[in-house]
Amino acid sequence: MKALPRLRSALLAEGLGTALLLAVVIGSGVMAERLAGGNVAVALLANTLATVGGLYALIEVFGPVSGAHFNPAVSAVMAWRGELPLAALLPYVAAQLLGAVAGAWLAHAMFDMSLLQFSTRVRGGAGQWLAEGVATFGLLLVILRAPAGRAPAMVAAYIGAAYWFTASTSFANPAAAFGRMFSDSFAGIAPASVPGFVAAEFAGALLALFAHRALGAPRAPNAPPP
Amino acid sequence: MKALPRLRSALLAEGLGTALLLAVVIGSGVMAERLAGGNVAVALLANTLATVGGLYALIEVFGPVSGAHFNPAVSAVMAWRGELPLAALLPYVAAQLLGAVAGAWLAHAMFDMSLLQFSTRVRGGAGQWLAEGVATFGLLLVILRAPAGRAPAMVAAYIGAAYWFTASTSFANPAAAFGRMFSDSFAGIAPASVPGFVAAEFAGALLALFAHRALGAPRAPNAPPP
Amino acid sequence: MKALPRLRSALLAEGLGTALLLAVVIGSGVMAERLAGGNVAVALLANTLATVGGLYALIEVFGPVSGAHFNPAVSAVMAWRGELPLAALLPYVAAQLLGAVAGAWLAHAMFDMSLLQFSTRVRGGAGQWLAEGVATFGLLLVILRAPAGRAPAMVAAYIGAAYWFTASTSFANPAAAFGRMFSDSFAGIAPASVPGFVAAEFAGALLALFAHRALGAPRAPNAPPP
Amino acid sequence: MKALPRLRSALLAEGLGTALLLAVVIGSGVMAERLAGGNVAVALLANTLATVGGLYALIEVFGPVSGAHFNPAVSAVMAWRGELPLAALLPYVAAQLLGAVAGAWLAHAMFDMSLLQFSTRVRGGAGQWLAEGVATFGLLLVILRAPAGRAPAMVAAYIGAAYWFTASTSFANPAAAFGRMFSDSFAGIAPASVPGFVAAEFAGALLALFAHRALGAPRAPNAPPP
Repeated sequence: MKALPRLRSALLAEGLGTALLLAVVIGSGVMAERLAGGNVAVALLANTLATVGGLYALIEVFGPVSGAHFNPAVSAVMAWRGELPLAALLPYVAAQLLGAVAGAWLAHAMFDMSLLQFSTRVRGGAGQWLAEGVATFGLLLVILRAPAGRAPAMVAAYIGAAYWFTASTSFANPAAAFGRMFSDSFAGIAPASVPGFVAAEFAGALLALFAHRALGAPRAPNAPPP
Repeated sequence: MKALPRLRSALLAEGLGTALLLAVVIGSGVMAERLAGGNVAVALLANTLATVGGLYALIEVFGPVSGAHFNPAVSAVMAWRGELPLAALLPYVAAQLLGAVAGAWLAHAMFDMSLLQFSTRVRGGAGQWLAEGVATFGLLLVILRAPAGRAPAMVAAYIGAAYWFTASTSFANPAAAFGRMFSDSFAGIAPASVPGFVAAEFAGALLALFAHRALGAPRAPNAPPP
Repeated sequence: MKALPRLRSALLAEGLGTALLLAVVIGSGVMAERLAGGNVAVALLANTLATVGGLYALIEVFGPVSGAHFNPAVSAVMAWRGELPLAALLPYVAAQLLGAVAGAWLAHAMFDMSLLQFSTRVRGGAGQWLAEGVATFGLLLVILRAPAGRAPAMVAAYIGAAYWFTASTSFANPAAAFGRMFSDSFAGIAPASVPGFVAAEFAGALLALFAHRALGAPRAPNAPPP
Repeated sequence: MKALPRLRSALLAEGLGTALLLAVVIGSGVMAERLAGGNVAVALLANTLATVGGLYALIEVFGPVSGAHFNPAVSAVMAWRGELPLAALLPYVAAQLLGAVAGAWLAHAMFDMSLLQFSTRVRGGAGQWLAEGVATFGLLLVILRAPAGRAPAMVAAYIGAAYWFTASTSFANPAAAFGRMFSDSFAGIAPASVPGFVAAEFAGALLALFAHRALGAPRAPNAPPP
C-alpha cells in the first residue's frame, strides 16, 4: 500500500543526495584548486574537509528516507543482504547515476564553467585499482558494522582518511566515478579510467561482505572479553 | 503569562548569538588574511574551521532559548510552518540584523580596525546567485530534517562544506549578508551586492520547503526498507 | 568522610589536566613553528587543531573527577554559583597554576629546550584586552549553558574558533596565561602582559554570569516555541 | 564453548584493524609528502587528519569484536587489569605485529613502492623518549577513563593532538613502531630506534595505570561537587 510512495521518496532522496554529494566533491575541488595557488596538498585538504562535512550532513538528512546509499556498490550489497528489495535496486542505481551527473552540472553552473565537459585526467594502474578496492572494502565494512546512529559520522571520518591513505584519493563509489567523469576539474576522472575503478570498487565491496561474516556478530558492549 | 519574558529571552539569544556568529566569521577572516601571507586557500581553511567550531557551540548554547536561528530565512520558514509565532517573526529578524552589525563592530574593535566601514567586495552574477540559492536550500533541508539533538553538529558540518562547494562561499543567511556589508575585510560584501544574495537565499529556502514535503516523513530508524 | 579523598583526587585531576593542557598548547606551538617554515597561518592552524583535540579528550577524562576546569576563572564562577565548595577554590587555583608551569616545562623537556625560560612576546592594548574579555565571556557562556554531556565537545569547538576570531588568539584562562609566561615560544606571553590579560578574562567571566541569568532557564527541547 | 570462535574473530579484528591503521598512517604520510612540496607542516596536518578520521572509524568498527586495541601496550594493560584473558595476550600481540607489517606493505602496494623496505629515519634522544612516554601515558589514561561509548572519538582526538604536542609525533604504540620500521617514508622509523621507543611506550602505559588508580572512580555525572 504505502510501498510505492515510499519508493518514490527514497528515489528522490538518492537522486537529490547523490547530486548534492557530487556538487560538494566537484565544487570544493574547483574552489580549492582556484585558491590554492598550485599547492596540491592544501587543495586536497580543503577538498577533504568539505567532503567530510557535506557527507556527514547528507547521510543524516537522507538516511531515514532511503538509507543514504548514494552509491551503487552500497545498494548492491544491501540488496544482497535483503535490506533493500531487489526490485528497488535498479531504480536506486538509476537515481544515483542521474543525480551524480546533475550534481556535476550544478557545480559547473555555480562556478560559471561550461556544463557539459569530460575529464581528461587518466587514473589507473595496479596501485590505483588496489587503492579503490581497499577504499571500498573499508567503506562497506564501516557501513555494515556501524553501531546504531553512528554511521553518518563514521562514514564521513573514514572517507576523509581514505582521501589521503589510498593512492586513488578514494572514489569508492561507482556513481561518483560516473559523475566525476563529466568534470574536467580537480576531482575529474577520464571516461576510459572509469571501468577499472568501478570493477575494483565492486571487488572491494564483495570482499567486505566476507570480512563482515568472518568477524561475526558484535558482542554486547558489556559482554565479557573473549 | 510566561510568553513575554520568554520572548525577551529569545530575542536576547538571537541578538547575542548572531553578534557572536558574525564576530566569528568576520574576526577569523581578518586574522586568517593577516597571517596567511596571500595564500587564500589557507585563509579560507582557517575561516571555515573557526566558523564550524563557533557555529556548533553557538547553536548548542542558544538553541534551547530561541531555536538559534541567527538567520531571517530560517525564522521565516519556521513562522510559515507554525513553529515560530507570527508575531515573533519581525522582532526575531530585527534582533538578528542588529546583532549582525554589532558583531561586525565587535570584530573590528578586537582587531583595532575602524568600527564603521563598508565592504567594497562586489559579489554577484548568475553563478554566485545560484550558489547562494543552493547553499540556503541545503541549510534549510538540514535544519528541517535533522534528527533530534543533531542539528548543531549537522548545521556546522554543512556550512563548513558550503564555504567550499558553493561559488559564493555560502553566506546562506540574510542577516549575515547584512552584517558582512559593514566590514571591508576578507568576509565582506559590497552593499550593492546584498539584495541579489538575499533574494537568492529566500528562493533557496522556499525550495527547501518543497523538497522537505516531497521527501515525506522520516521512517523510524528500524522500519523495514521501502 | 569521603570529601577529603575526593578533594585530593580532584586536585590531582586539576593539576595533571592543566599540565597536559599546557603541554598540548605550548608543545604543538613549538612543533608547528618549527615545521611551518614561516607560514604563521599554517602554524596557528596546527596549534588550533591540536588544542581542540587535546582539550576535548582532557575534559572527558578529568570532568567526572574535578569538573575539568583547568582555569581559575571557571573555578571562581563555579564557586560563586555554589557548584564548587568555597574551601576548594584556592586549592583548585593552586593546582591549576602549578600544573600550568609543569606543563610548560614538560613541553620544553620533550622538545629539548631549556626548562626555565620567560616569554618576550608582548601582548596587550585595547583590542587584545577586549578580545580576551570576549573569549572568556564566550567560554563561560558555553560552560554554563552546555546540555548534559556536550560540554567537552562544545568547549573544544568554541576554543578552536576563538583561536582565530579573537585578536588575542584566546587565552581565556588565567592559568594558561600564567603557564605560557614561562615559555619563550609561539604560544608565549611576556610576564608584563599577563596582568592585563587576566583582568580582562575575569571581566569577561563576570559578564557571562549576567548574560546567563538574563537568558533564563533553557526550555525543554520539545517545549512549544516562545 | 563459544570462547574459541570468539578469540578467532578477535584476532582477525586485531590483525585487520592494525593493518588498516598502519595503511592509514603510512599511506597518508606518503600522499602528504608527495603533494606538500616540501612544506612539512602541511604534510603533517594531512597525516594527522587522516589518522584521526581513520582511527575513529576503525575503533568503532572493531571495538565490539576485540576491543580495538591495535596496540600491545593497550593489550598488556588490559590483561593486567583482567579485562583480557592472559592466554589471549600473546595471540593479540602477534596479530597486531603481523597486521602492522601487512598494513605497511599494503600502503606500499597502493603507492607503487617496493614492498620490502626499511626506514632510515633515526628517531631518539631524551626528548623523543620522554615524548613517547607522555604520548602513551595520555593514550592509556584516555582509554582507561573514557565514558561509555566515547572512547573512539576521544582516542582519535587525543592522537591528533599528540601528533603535534609530542616531539616524537606520538607513535604511542609498539605495533605501530614495529610496522613503521618497514617503511622508508614520511612515517618511518629506523629499526635501531624502535627499542627505545617501545621501552618508553611501556613506561608511559605503566605510569598511566598508577595515575588511573590515584584519580579514583569517576563520580556520577550529577553527584555533588567534591
